[in-house]
Amino acid sequence: MPLRAAATRVDAVMGEIRARIASRRLAPGARLPSVRDFAESAGVSKSTVVDAYERLVAEGAVTSRRGSGFFVAGATRPLSLQSLHPDLDRAIDPLWVTRQSLSCGPQVLKPGWGILPESYSPDVSVQRALRSLAREGAAGDRLSYASPLGHPPLRALIALRLGERGVALDPGQIMLTDSATQGLDLLLRLLIEPGDTVLVDDPCYFNFLAMLLSHRATVVGVPFGPAGVDVDALERAMAAGRPRIYLTTAGPQNPTGAVTSAATAHRVLTLAERHDVIVIEDDTFADFETEPSPRLAGLDGLARVVGTGCYSKTVSAAIRCGYVIARPDWIEALVDLKLSTSHGNGHMASVLLHTVLTGGTYKRHVEALRTKLARDRGETLGRLRAFGLTPLIEPRAGMFVWAELPDGLDAAAVARRALAEDVLFAPGNVFSASHRVAGFLRFNVAGSADPRIFDVLDRTMRACRAGK
Amino acid sequence: MPLRAAATRVDAVMGEIRARIASRRLAPGARLPSVRDFAESAGVSKSTVVDAYERLVAEGAVTSRRGSGFFVAGATRPLSLQSLHPDLDRAIDPLWVTRQSLSCGPQVLKPGWGILPESYSPDVSVQRALRSLAREGAAGDRLSYASPLGHPPLRALIALRLGERGVALDPGQIMLTDSATQGLDLLLRLLIEPGDTVLVDDPCYFNFLAMLLSHRATVVGVPFGPAGVDVDALERAMAAGRPRIYLTTAGPQNPTGAVTSAATAHRVLTLAERHDVIVIEDDTFADFETEPSPRLAGLDGLARVVGTGCYSKTVSAAIRCGYVIARPDWIEALVDLKLSTSHGNGHMASVLLHTVLTGGTYKRHVEALRTKLARDRGETLGRLRAFGLTPLIEPRAGMFVWAELPDGLDAAAVARRALAEDVLFAPGNVFSASHRVAGFLRFNVAGSADPRIFDVLDRTMRACRAGK
Repeated sequence: MPLRAAATRVDAVMGEIRARIASRRLAPGARLPSVRDFAESAGVSKSTVVDAYERLVAEGAVTSRRGSGFFVAGATRPLSLQSLHPDLDRAIDPLWVTRQSLSCGPQVLKPGWGILPESYSPDVSVQRALRSLAREGAAGDRLSYASPLGHPPLRALIALRLGERGVALDPGQIMLTDSATQGLDLLLRLLIEPGDTVLVDDPCYFNFLAMLLSHRATVVGVPFGPAGVDVDALERAMAAGRPRIYLTTAGPQNPTGAVTSAATAHRVLTLAERHDVIVIEDDTFADFETEPSPRLAGLDGLARVVGTGCYSKTVSAAIRCGYVIARPDWIEALVDLKLSTSHGNGHMASVLLHTVLTGGTYKRHVEALRTKLARDRGETLGRLRAFGLTPLIEPRAGMFVWAELPDGLDAAAVARRALAEDVLFAPGNVFSASHRVAGFLRFNVAGSADPRIFDVLDRTMRACRAGK
Repeated sequence: MPLRAAATRVDAVMGEIRARIASRRLAPGARLPSVRDFAESAGVSKSTVVDAYERLVAEGAVTSRRGSGFFVAGATRPLSLQSLHPDLDRAIDPLWVTRQSLSCGPQVLKPGWGILPESYSPDVSVQRALRSLAREGAAGDRLSYASPLGHPPLRALIALRLGERGVALDPGQIMLTDSATQGLDLLLRLLIEPGDTVLVDDPCYFNFLAMLLSHRATVVGVPFGPAGVDVDALERAMAAGRPRIYLTTAGPQNPTGAVTSAATAHRVLTLAERHDVIVIEDDTFADFETEPSPRLAGLDGLARVVGTGCYSKTVSAAIRCGYVIARPDWIEALVDLKLSTSHGNGHMASVLLHTVLTGGTYKRHVEALRTKLARDRGETLGRLRAFGLTPLIEPRAGMFVWAELPDGLDAAAVARRALAEDVLFAPGNVFSASHRVAGFLRFNVAGSADPRIFDVLDRTMRACRAGK
């Protein structure tokens, strides 16, 4: 345990204990390491540790029980993301964009938000599905719980679609959930312990970071670029950190829009095998691709790769339905976890989603959506360049463009000022475990057409330059 | 730490370590207690501990790292309820009834299941709500995410209904979830650490036990009888176990149908205050009561009581929507947890539920439901007595009757035999942390009218008596 730099050894010990308490590696009521063990592992004298513990007792952070040692004070303090990560700047809190987007008023323009406009959604099909459920559907579809794995016809359909993307599996290896997010949460509950190291792409979807925080994982970012993850950096991270999980995405990545090459995918699986790392692959943006890119789940045959997915981007975010794919023995354990923590996924939602997907117009809807997004990407890239921003790449699919501000401007500062003018941007560091992409913004190309967005961007950039 | 009885001290130490590994108090990769600490706390010699550790290494359960101590072997073994509780008899696994009920065929009669028949549901109102959402609803209600706390009109309505039951709160103290179950899960994630002691009523809703297992809580049952929890036993449990949480229910209890008296409620809150215990009160069966019984949340003013609830029993289990009520500062932390682990509750479900609840017929529906259930309770009690079973009480509300088999028969054995004849009973011990109610069955009075149920019950009881 390398101690942080500190004025004295006693301060260093106190700082380390405080850090463990803040990160909940030492929970309220937990016993501190024995003086002897701590002294040995930290390479300091026992008297130094005793001094430090006594001073923490004096501070009230720690209590001492005669004969039984030292314990973290406080018994009912609840866990919160803030307490897990007390130094978090709220503007780069991974939940910042979500909270702002879900709670801001209708006057706020949201080029930073990850949802497509209503006009991009198959609302007519959703309305039709609602009417058919009201009219023809079995009463059970309106009233009952789902079966343990979830609506069989929908699982069969998902198995078919996954097969078309090179992921061969049995519908029994698919468990429906209320969202891809819940699927990932259940996988983490199954597979990691607090303190386990999880590797993520850097940048990655900000909610991956928020969720890993809530699981008290040790999150390590691996640089992710135009061709996918930096495999040399991934190898170093796997060799160094003894990670349990590498969490990544298939198809156009959120936020960069970059796609993993076949060569990279092969390298990633070889490294995961060598270092006994489980790979979680999220496939939320699958249907944005015309030509499917490599799926780790397909290449690996779901041996050490597990996956999540949903249709919230191409059907509806109000119909909560996602899925997990995994080895049969893990699916069995995941069903237990799902039933005990949520009493199963929503049956009505899965029936409605199945009706929309089989309504005969979904394929056409998705093709039209890809065309619209290709146009939007082109227009947004043009605007960004016109205002001096530099896109990392020109994504060949998806709804996002990832672009760097000029002159080393700080995206968090720009986002804070812009929000005051009713424009919500997504600053780079909310996507970054390492906080090394402070200059970037993520743009939702379908939500970036309003000229006011770029007026405000231009004005806030000038203000930040001027340091006002 | 009291060691289990064992042939030798070395075996005893090995047994204790194995138990900690099985219960995940020692997780894969975790460091074993230092030889010195373990020897002291167990009152055995260091050489005994060293012997035991070395033999566990030889078995492969533990690995030894030169200079840094002993560690639990295995890094990718997933968590499962079975591994958490390896000696679990599948027939008294708390998830048994749920899994059987959700996956059995239509020919199976389910007097043990907790769902009302479709004919008891307001299906017409649900159909109307679906049509109105398809027709008049705003597109956002079909397509968008919910706001962080969830649909404001529904929270306002729930606040009103809670007020009628004596729970005064602001709608901002209500967070919508996808189920009462998810609400409880989020509360446990917020409030407890693995290994924390949680007190539950004994018997209680079996999924409370399944969920607490998945949270790795130490679950302690407190006898629950005709007047509610045994407050003297509760006081002893609070004094002995330093519990963090007491998890209980308001209204007619599942499975006993008993209701907590005002005097008991007052005593419970006084004890919780004295021992600094947080009380979680589930209110799922609220609308079954004609005269509301005392709510701990109301008496306490949501200081140390938090609550969960839903409408899955009186509206629909397919519309996934529940809620949590808590102190404002805890609600803030719960919203972070909800967003990061499920991306928020389902917006469409909350809109549909709100439409059903405000449709003008819900009050009539609930009154008719109470009348039907009163009739069903009477008929079921009559049949049970005719077949020699003894009800704990005659519940004055709700859908359950809790009755004891004659002649000390084992309900798990009866349930196993009955399932082979396509009748699903709910054996007592799935509801019991102490497994001390082996003679009881829970009956859903609305699902117990079919004569075949009692033919099978009679036959299986005879077979069990005869020990066939």
